[in-house]
Amino acid sequence: MTDEQLVRELAGSIEPTDAAWHERAWQRLDSLTKPPRSLGRLEGLAAKVAAVQRTERPSVAEKAIVLMAGDHGVVAEGVAPYPQEVTAQMVANFVAGGAAINQLAAWCGARMALVDVGIVVDIAPIDDLIDEKVAYGTANMAEGPAMTVAQAAQALLVGAGLARNAAKLGTALIGTGEMGIGNTTAASALAAAFCGLDPADVVGRGTGLDDDGVAHKAEVVRRALAVNRVDATRPLETLAAVGGLEIAGLVGVVLGSAASGVCVVADGFIAGAAALVALRMAPHARDYLFASHRSAEPGHMHVLGALDLQPVLELDMRLGEGSGAALAMGIIDAACRVMSGMATFAEAGVSEAAE
Amino acid sequence: MTDEQLVRELAGSIEPTDAAWHERAWQRLDSLTKPPRSLGRLEGLAAKVAAVQRTERPSVAEKAIVLMAGDHGVVAEGVAPYPQEVTAQMVANFVAGGAAINQLAAWCGARMALVDVGIVVDIAPIDDLIDEKVAYGTANMAEGPAMTVAQAAQALLVGAGLARNAAKLGTALIGTGEMGIGNTTAASALAAAFCGLDPADVVGRGTGLDDDGVAHKAEVVRRALAVNRVDATRPLETLAAVGGLEIAGLVGVVLGSAASGVCVVADGFIAGAAALVALRMAPHARDYLFASHRSAEPGHMHVLGALDLQPVLELDMRLGEGSGAALAMGIIDAACRVMSGMATFAEAGVSEAAE
Repeated sequence: MTDEQLVRELAGSIEPTDAAWHERAWQRLDSLTKPPRSLGRLEGLAAKVAAVQRTERPSVAEKAIVLMAGDHGVVAEGVAPYPQEVTAQMVANFVAGGAAINQLAAWCGARMALVDVGIVVDIAPIDDLIDEKVAYGTANMAEGPAMTVAQAAQALLVGAGLARNAAKLGTALIGTGEMGIGNTTAASALAAAFCGLDPADVVGRGTGLDDDGVAHKAEVVRRALAVNRVDATRPLETLAAVGGLEIAGLVGVVLGSAASGVCVVADGFIAGAAALVALRMAPHARDYLFASHRSAEPGHMHVLGALDLQPVLELDMRLGEGSGAALAMGIIDAACRVMSGMATFAEAGVSEAAE
Repeated sequence: MTDEQLVRELAGSIEPTDAAWHERAWQRLDSLTKPPRSLGRLEGLAAKVAAVQRTERPSVAEKAIVLMAGDHGVVAEGVAPYPQEVTAQMVANFVAGGAAINQLAAWCGARMALVDVGIVVDIAPIDDLIDEKVAYGTANMAEGPAMTVAQAAQALLVGAGLARNAAKLGTALIGTGEMGIGNTTAASALAAAFCGLDPADVVGRGTGLDDDGVAHKAEVVRRALAVNRVDATRPLETLAAVGGLEIAGLVGVVLGSAASGVCVVADGFIAGAAALVALRMAPHARDYLFASHRSAEPGHMHVLGALDLQPVLELDMRLGEGSGAALAMGIIDAACRVMSGMATFAEAGVSEAAE
């Protein structure tokens, strides 16, 4: 089979979770020593994990963050305030443990898988960096497709394979992270395409553009969508045309997690755009998917709406790397601990409310 | 000195944090390998802790939750759907480890101090329960003062003493929790008094009242405020008239933490009302205080406004016990780890943004 066929088979293999397990989860939650539903959204998070895991005692003790890095040809259009070399420099920083995500992954107890799926330079073989380079960056999407469909499928399968392996090793919760100078431009193009919006409604400051920079970025996205005659009813082709190698990889992480029956957390705007591509290919993947936070990047609001997911956190973050995913993974862990570790009214001998 | 004099001395001893340390904190945050301010509210949380601790590398590794339990005479008015015996039953559940707060304290790495400051029954001496009972519950505030000023001051000093001791033992972050059937009614009275609002604007369902129950509760609060001729310019007297023993204890935890130079996290509506009393006695305590979450209880919005603090989380929780505080303590921990553990651009050899 071609990679493209494998991708379609993967997407088609994802099954919805079982409504009966949702029901059982809420029955247990309502039997615990607290006023019913008084833990608010924590209860919904725990019930969702419980349904995925088909248990009344969900656990996400084993966690991993898959951080995909890739470069973007569209930086030639001057859409990013940081030079392209920062992608590789930040990957070195991830390996050395100096980035925000290193601290946050340690905080929530997640292992990290760092993946070079398309950095423009060769990074000398180093421990803790998985070399799955599909290409030396994407082509400039403002002039033609960022990737061939075959490249997008290949990158997607890298992510799916990592998720499947993590699931086999007992990982119960997978977070998505990304690094790639220029990738808010690609995410903006995907968001505009899949949400049916004008690029001006989705582009934002990224890592720090001024107003003129934002207007220029919208124009570049508009050109990319036009040049590539993007048709959002064909998600893999749209991903190839205006996405990115690391974004394709994260689409694969979402699909691979769902196919393996494992919960997966979308980080911010870019990982959210990847999750949106995944849901357009496999709507049932939504049963396994959590939105971590609402990014300060304006397009993310539209992406969350299209995902039909309420984010766990609202902290005005806009860093990426999986930083928001890590924080939400901690909260989901707390939710599962509450559901699995609390006593029921009967067990604790606590009186229930008067009717 | 009387307890009342000791309370006034404590409140008067609290000093503001140093603006120069805030400045240094933001300088370090802006030097770290991320676009400036891209970690959003995490950065503000870390900077606040850094200013309290007078360091560029804040840490809240050592955490404690002080959970105060007390009963309320106002339950005679039929303001709570659960029977009063649930206060003691839930304390037994806390000791046994079966409540939500046990799971959440373990999750964020906080020790718990459980304090009987005013339960109506004697609980047999048990390990892990601190007996500091000031009275067997409060009197019915709808008929007269809930406590004498001396009782309120005594309960307050219990909390202050625990916070001071925790600080001496190296605790860097203290969370406030409470248990007391009827205490949303007391918190509503305090919120109405200090925010200058009609009781109908602050009362809510508590642990599960219906619409008629909420209207009745507002009427009871209105009666309590009138009977006691509450004067919000006198916070200790107001606390005594319409507060609660566990609420007074938490006022002391906030004041004792601030006086000891330690950060303190208010849980939801009830602990928030306690924090508001504390700030009316010692406005500088705000420099040490964090609001954990926005409770689903409607009065909490007004309390947060009066505290002038933005909550860390919005998860529609309304349990109390310190459950929201524990979650926020985890996020504050994450914020400090980021600030203290990340590399700077110079250290990591990462290029900065073009001007």
